[in-house]
Amino acid sequence: MSLIVQKYGGTSIGTIEKIGNVADKVAACVKNGNKVVVAVSAMSGETNKLIALANEMSENKHARELDVLVSTGEQVTIALLTMALLDRGCDARSYTGAQIRMVTDDAHGKARIKNIQCENMKADLDANRVVVVAGFQGVDENGNITTLGRGGSDTTAVAIAAALEADECQIYTDVSGVYTTDPRVEPKARKLDRITFEEMLEMASLGSKVLQIRAVEFAGKYNVPLRVLSSFEEGEGTLIALEDDGVEQALISGIAFNRDEAQLTIKGVPDQPGVASKILGPVTDANIEIDMIVQNTSEDGFTDFTFTVHRNDYQAAHDLLKGVCADLGAKKLKGDDAIVKISLVGVGMRSHAGIANTMFATLANENINILMISTSEIKISVVVDEKYLELGVRSLHEAFGLDSDGHLKNL
Amino acid sequence: MSLIVQKYGGTSIGTIEKIGNVADKVAACVKNGNKVVVAVSAMSGETNKLIALANEMSENKHARELDVLVSTGEQVTIALLTMALLDRGCDARSYTGAQIRMVTDDAHGKARIKNIQCENMKADLDANRVVVVAGFQGVDENGNITTLGRGGSDTTAVAIAAALEADECQIYTDVSGVYTTDPRVEPKARKLDRITFEEMLEMASLGSKVLQIRAVEFAGKYNVPLRVLSSFEEGEGTLIALEDDGVEQALISGIAFNRDEAQLTIKGVPDQPGVASKILGPVTDANIEIDMIVQNTSEDGFTDFTFTVHRNDYQAAHDLLKGVCADLGAKKLKGDDAIVKISLVGVGMRSHAGIANTMFATLANENINILMISTSEIKISVVVDEKYLELGVRSLHEAFGLDSDGHLKNL
Repeated sequence: MSLIVQKYGGTSIGTIEKIGNVADKVAACVKNGNKVVVAVSAMSGETNKLIALANEMSENKHARELDVLVSTGEQVTIALLTMALLDRGCDARSYTGAQIRMVTDDAHGKARIKNIQCENMKADLDANRVVVVAGFQGVDENGNITTLGRGGSDTTAVAIAAALEADECQIYTDVSGVYTTDPRVEPKARKLDRITFEEMLEMASLGSKVLQIRAVEFAGKYNVPLRVLSSFEEGEGTLIALEDDGVEQALISGIAFNRDEAQLTIKGVPDQPGVASKILGPVTDANIEIDMIVQNTSEDGFTDFTFTVHRNDYQAAHDLLKGVCADLGAKKLKGDDAIVKISLVGVGMRSHAGIANTMFATLANENINILMISTSEIKISVVVDEKYLELGVRSLHEAFGLDSDGHLKNL
Repeated sequence: MSLIVQKYGGTSIGTIEKIGNVADKVAACVKNGNKVVVAVSAMSGETNKLIALANEMSENKHARELDVLVSTGEQVTIALLTMALLDRGCDARSYTGAQIRMVTDDAHGKARIKNIQCENMKADLDANRVVVVAGFQGVDENGNITTLGRGGSDTTAVAIAAALEADECQIYTDVSGVYTTDPRVEPKARKLDRITFEEMLEMASLGSKVLQIRAVEFAGKYNVPLRVLSSFEEGEGTLIALEDDGVEQALISGIAFNRDEAQLTIKGVPDQPGVASKILGPVTDANIEIDMIVQNTSEDGFTDFTFTVHRNDYQAAHDLLKGVCADLGAKKLKGDDAIVKISLVGVGMRSHAGIANTMFATLANENINILMISTSEIKISVVVDEKYLELGVRSLHEAFGLDSDGHLKNL
């Protein structure tokens, strides 16, 4: 007997019929001898409807009350799903975030989970009852309703799985698993059977938006085996877990990319201690998130400093930097918002040299100029002109043997 | 400075615009130097929509989950109204039934309030904050969400007013007050400035559906002055309070009626101890509510036993009684579901003889045959053929000087 936490997103429970299908899946899992906790999102579109209602009511953002409002979305689905389970002879009980005492901090709209009271859930599971929990929501220490922010239901599920020491946390979604890259860009993209937490983090943050990144961090931290699978198709999905020593690791697990980047370069900055924080300080103070940062070795006491931001923040960051450049006595400010980032991800690269070289050679072979490079233990990212996105991804996908019919070509 | 509890029903807050109007009213009350608690219902139609969703999901009634579902309706309105108040510079905070700890028994769908935790509300009121509470809902001792049943928001408001010892509980609705009778039947019906709790109870239970009867009971028990007034028109409405010794009481406050009655008579029952419970026992066991009961003095050891039930329950009660009649050796079972009840209500009748006689004479004058009579301290009810409803109500309304241009005629 296993303890399974399942999570169903909005598209999986978008209609009464689909909620019925989810109830069938849950009931089948129970019949197979498992104890099950289910976390659910609001029916697809409902959260947006509630936010639209708030916007119609007020031009201001009243964070506490917005959480009171939008948290009703999940409350509707837990009740409906529990009814459907009871109809299937599957004993079940619903809980809001407040009832489960999913305690968070008080950052309304983006709260972080602090702890979970498991007594109710454990009692229900012991009584062979399915526990249906409203995802995305919690309460602060004072009992105010909070929400975890978009995609927070994934985090709810993983946090419950961690607290209950579940055997597996299954995230049901509208894709059948994690792919080597986005199949819309490379039709030969292959579903991965297994990927490590670290790889998934790199994939997720780089644009493969299957799972909420915080959920993956949480799962990695507490070592909760996480499975992404489809609500609509049969299949084993992709297991996200610790590195498995017994299995030969693929060199590269996948190729992520991000179209939302813009690049800013300050050229000829006097190379002094503290220069980086003088440049980035005003940017982060303006709540602009910075992604890649590259600084080259200094030449003649001057250095070039480059970083990327979300494309929506490009103009604001550019305006800010004009002042910074003048203050620092930098020579020139350059910017480009027609760039993309392409990243190779794989724990295998830790033990293999030559990956970076193969990457650069493959791109050179296609006459793709690399504008910026950044590397980590399990990732190599390059920035290129946005027109090269598809060509770059496809050539790398083939070169690293990721195609569904593929084999290693350039190594 | 007064402490006022206001309650706004679904039609008062049916749209974003109307919620804004309610916020204006509340803000004005605060500006006049009052501390205010507001209890609200769901936006009109929302509760029915949620129930329809439940019916679409399941043919069975899952009472606990239905309460989880429908309680979201009020949660939406408390958030929106609080946003609107904040926009008007009126500090405010929303609370669900669970957050206020409106503790009820566990009778889902028709729960009764047991106690209310006032600490949060008092702290907010002390900080000059408007407290916005979700009506209609509570939690049982174990934290399960409960609802008080239709119209329960009135009870929420009165219970809070009682717990906080408020100066007045104002029920805003779509009528401008309590009338001497239904203006749709008698256009000359007059709004009452004042009525006692007891009179209001008789009026409400007899079909003047302005206020939930439980709310009036509650208000009377804890002596909470209750005011019914319109959300849409200016005016003082009707104050429901203890009898005011300083003021000359009207003989009759109003004429209530009920079209939903059906009458059942068992004729020739052997007159023995315990016969009433043998007749009514099976009916109440079948969850059929009994309204009027009349038993005449016995003749030759036999008696006639008559009672009324809701018209929807007529057939079921009739079927049940067939068996009972056989068991008791009664002579005959008669029934009539084309009857109505008309009632005079007034605390004044306690100290005045002749009211009943005037009533019967007035009806006789119109050739209206009385089928059944039942009296209490402050009420006289008669059952007549349903075709006489309008004529009966109007002639009594005039006879007792209730017409807007009226004067006492027959006394």
